[in-house]
Amino acid sequence: MYQKFEDIGGSAHSAERLQSLRAALKRLSLTGFMLPRSDEFQNEFVAADAEQLLWLTGFSGSWGEAVILEDRAGLVIDGRYELQASKQIDVGAYDLININRSSLSKWLGEHLKAGDRLGYDPRLHTVSQVERLGKIVAAAKAELVAVEPNPLAELWTDRPASKLEPISLQPLEFAGVSANDKILDIQNKLVRSGSDAVVIGPLDSIAWLFNIRGRDLPHTPFVIAYAMIPAAGKARLFIDGRKLTSHIRHALSEVAIIAEPSERSAYLSELGKQKAVVQLDSSSVSQWYLTQLKHAGATIRKERDPCTLPKARKNDAEVSGARAAHLRDGVAVSRFLAWFEKAALPDALDEISVARRLEEFRRESNLMRDISFDTIAAAGPNGAIVHYRPTFASNRKIEAGSLFLIDSGAQYNDGTTDLTRTLAVGTPTGEMRRHYTLVLKGHIALATARFPEKTRGSHIDAFARRPLWEAGLDFDHGTGHGVGSFLSVHEGPQSISRRDSAALEAGMIVSNEPGFYREGEYGIRIENLLLVTPLEDIPGGERPMMGFETLTLAPYDRALIDKALLRNDEIAWIDAYHQRVFGELGEQVDDETRTWLGKATAALRRPDL
Amino acid sequence: MYQKFEDIGGSAHSAERLQSLRAALKRLSLTGFMLPRSDEFQNEFVAADAEQLLWLTGFSGSWGEAVILEDRAGLVIDGRYELQASKQIDVGAYDLININRSSLSKWLGEHLKAGDRLGYDPRLHTVSQVERLGKIVAAAKAELVAVEPNPLAELWTDRPASKLEPISLQPLEFAGVSANDKILDIQNKLVRSGSDAVVIGPLDSIAWLFNIRGRDLPHTPFVIAYAMIPAAGKARLFIDGRKLTSHIRHALSEVAIIAEPSERSAYLSELGKQKAVVQLDSSSVSQWYLTQLKHAGATIRKERDPCTLPKARKNDAEVSGARAAHLRDGVAVSRFLAWFEKAALPDALDEISVARRLEEFRRESNLMRDISFDTIAAAGPNGAIVHYRPTFASNRKIEAGSLFLIDSGAQYNDGTTDLTRTLAVGTPTGEMRRHYTLVLKGHIALATARFPEKTRGSHIDAFARRPLWEAGLDFDHGTGHGVGSFLSVHEGPQSISRRDSAALEAGMIVSNEPGFYREGEYGIRIENLLLVTPLEDIPGGERPMMGFETLTLAPYDRALIDKALLRNDEIAWIDAYHQRVFGELGEQVDDETRTWLGKATAALRRPDL
Repeated sequence: MYQKFEDIGGSAHSAERLQSLRAALKRLSLTGFMLPRSDEFQNEFVAADAEQLLWLTGFSGSWGEAVILEDRAGLVIDGRYELQASKQIDVGAYDLININRSSLSKWLGEHLKAGDRLGYDPRLHTVSQVERLGKIVAAAKAELVAVEPNPLAELWTDRPASKLEPISLQPLEFAGVSANDKILDIQNKLVRSGSDAVVIGPLDSIAWLFNIRGRDLPHTPFVIAYAMIPAAGKARLFIDGRKLTSHIRHALSEVAIIAEPSERSAYLSELGKQKAVVQLDSSSVSQWYLTQLKHAGATIRKERDPCTLPKARKNDAEVSGARAAHLRDGVAVSRFLAWFEKAALPDALDEISVARRLEEFRRESNLMRDISFDTIAAAGPNGAIVHYRPTFASNRKIEAGSLFLIDSGAQYNDGTTDLTRTLAVGTPTGEMRRHYTLVLKGHIALATARFPEKTRGSHIDAFARRPLWEAGLDFDHGTGHGVGSFLSVHEGPQSISRRDSAALEAGMIVSNEPGFYREGEYGIRIENLLLVTPLEDIPGGERPMMGFETLTLAPYDRALIDKALLRNDEIAWIDAYHQRVFGELGEQVDDETRTWLGKATAALRRPDL
Repeated sequence: MYQKFEDIGGSAHSAERLQSLRAALKRLSLTGFMLPRSDEFQNEFVAADAEQLLWLTGFSGSWGEAVILEDRAGLVIDGRYELQASKQIDVGAYDLININRSSLSKWLGEHLKAGDRLGYDPRLHTVSQVERLGKIVAAAKAELVAVEPNPLAELWTDRPASKLEPISLQPLEFAGVSANDKILDIQNKLVRSGSDAVVIGPLDSIAWLFNIRGRDLPHTPFVIAYAMIPAAGKARLFIDGRKLTSHIRHALSEVAIIAEPSERSAYLSELGKQKAVVQLDSSSVSQWYLTQLKHAGATIRKERDPCTLPKARKNDAEVSGARAAHLRDGVAVSRFLAWFEKAALPDALDEISVARRLEEFRRESNLMRDISFDTIAAAGPNGAIVHYRPTFASNRKIEAGSLFLIDSGAQYNDGTTDLTRTLAVGTPTGEMRRHYTLVLKGHIALATARFPEKTRGSHIDAFARRPLWEAGLDFDHGTGHGVGSFLSVHEGPQSISRRDSAALEAGMIVSNEPGFYREGEYGIRIENLLLVTPLEDIPGGERPMMGFETLTLAPYDRALIDKALLRNDEIAWIDAYHQRVFGELGEQVDDETRTWLGKATAALRRPDL
């Protein structure tokens, strides 16, 4: 299984570890230390040996930051983790700093003393984060001190070893553009903007740029590596050589000079000696680079990561791959849905057994490389916890009259998937059907949107919310996130949310996942992935417009659709989508699933209308 | 007449004035000078004696900036003024810098030389503008030099005298809150934030804060004055004493120390001597204040103008006033529309005669204090020029088979109005009706929107565009702007546009004016003002929602509505709105207008449906 259901975290060792850290800080003449959850690449999923915050505090959430002072400590979290954190950590030792109500800035303002020396590991914080933190610390007349090595290095004695999984090349058939061409394109941009080199921080950028994939992290096929591209000459890829077969080393050597990670400093010094202008993205590159480069004599220019936009705009090969991956995934998901409808009640399933069964269906394609994130299999009230993930402790039986929410995805060589379906178990109430249908109306309004160039996700996010808003309802998460191409299931710069983000461009993939959550009762979310596509000329139209192609193929639960709340054009859209789902999947599934699929995708509109 | 139709501008004196300015710059050891269109308050409508850009260049647009170098000059404009500017200025003497294609930064980058000394008048540029300009100039290794007095002062010998119109007090009945309470509220905020004083820059903030109105500027009832509020003690109002009757001086003296504008420097010095922390809004307060304060020893804190939000959130008295003003305005507009339908063709009207007639209808209430902006009366193709304003040179006859667009508003003691109607003259084409109906659908979608707290105009702007987007069409302006309460017809911070702006809050007024423009043929715009209102609890709803109350009362042209393109709920909305228009205006108009209004507001839906 790719998914683990063990309960991790907990404060059993918290006191002793906190004490040993404080002792170490004293030896370093520090009065405090910042420890974020992030690794040195700001990854969403981090390797076991990078789970420093979990080791220290016992908190296992995906975002958080500990701040340790001499006589006080705090754990910064956001609202979704308040309950979890309060269970996992020693609340006697740590103040919970919920950023929805307070802030690190406020907490430090109260507890940091003039003259304090607050340490941080410059590899774990981006340039922007250090800028912000620096201002907060300066306001308290204290000092922010970069500390190398991280004091946890000597304290965490049973730290797991780093993974040394072999890497693979992403073939041109799926990547669409060779690493050589991608690098040349970036070098041309560097020349045009007058930069001598660029530091590439994020691992998805590096994987995309060099067309490499790996298994160093859970659920995301990244390779732990470091990259710098000079405007002229060969790119630099710093990677543990033990992960490279001679074939792959040879292939990569054609586009880059391959070196060990420890050799980075030497290259940065060289750039400094050349008085190079080096650009980096301050929102993703760690402070460590900035310090090294400045020290060496380089000039820093802050620019957006040059991989971000070309990576987000999927090329023809990536688009074909995405379609193939979604077809394959749709087959597995349809088989799963047919199985679920039959098995759920008589077999008294629970969340974990369902998540396992879904992973099995996907594995049967023999092409799944991983799940793209831990499946959210949420029964009844667990569905209302937006970031729920089933564990042995939380695992819940699936009961008649409840809703079951399943949000899952897979990594295939040709693409990354992510879909959510909400399923009625037994007979749903009228209220469940009404709420489901309102969410579905928003989902359709976004899927059918047409929009001109320069439209941002924040401009059309409300399309997905309007039916809920009209009913006095809403949901507290974004409507959609970008998705990578056999890369991260959460990828920028585009999104569909109230927060301003990048303009939507042809080839970008975004999720379309409005929801509704009734605490203690049920959660509803309906998610497909959408591909931004230029539209054919519209008769009478004057401007080029874009729209979405729905990539995900899986039926909606007809038992939850209240037709009376739908307009004719919405019914027509559902019927057309269902017809397409049956058309594309029908031939590829077993007879039993096909029969089920035929019923699940039958038209809502009577054929005589 | 409040509106003037003379053609102003033109380059007759351009060469000699440019030459004399260059000579003056030489005497000041400057190699260049920046001259914006704005006055020292960043007003939209500026007094005749502040029209320095017009005097120098002959350009009469509402936004622009000249940059004069030793051997080259440029005029920065935006796209809407390209044609007008190229006609008005000496294109041999000035490069046209259209910010939709180029930028001041680019032009200065090409033409500013290292060592150049570029002068500017610190009263005419905000703090933010000087920051931006400073960066551009520094990049060219040149110097930005504040110049006092403005060199134009001695060159512009026939400059009109400043107006000295008497000011009036805005009665509590319309203002809702006394100046004393408003000032106390700001002083409390200053104390809480640790500021010792605040500079209030914009004239609408000053008029709002002291509940004063005047006639110093066209179309906006502002008073030219300056204000500073200390955290403790009396507010300071600097105003030309000749504008004050003894009654008003006495009333104002209860809330402020009244002084002449020339006494400002002394007060700023005093703040400096006290080492005061003085806050100012860098987007509206001029650099002159910043320099004076810093020089005197004060500490500057950049904060939003404390008047902006309370001014935008209309209180109950202001809301009642807005309703009364719109009812009164609706009566005048309905009389005008009835007249227009009858007179347009047989009388061979032209734009100017129509604009004059509309102003007369409004004057007949005896309560209009001014029009709120120059009426856009645009026949046929002139309607497609978004910022059109009729002049004797552009004046166009109204012809059968064309569309007539009229965008106008009035200033009443109790409120400011602004509405646009597009009217069919004779029989419209099917295409005109289709485009009109698409615009109307967007207008209705915005008018009927419900949304939760923290929703910004940029989140719902697309509601007004979606029907056009679906047809491959769009319009190139914002959907709505804020409107003042017997103040500016364009007021921030809220707006309905793609650009991010402030959250919509109860009591804010915004316009709802989508459009469609076919160059060389016709323009369509439909505009009502909307009041943001909290909604009653929605059955089944869980969250407080807000919506809009339509303030404007005037029928849409039924001849332009293509019912086949409307959904039933849209037809029902138009019918309900028309019923309300007839209900509210019917009793207040003459018999002939009432008869016309009855027909104009008849239901679109057949009564048996």
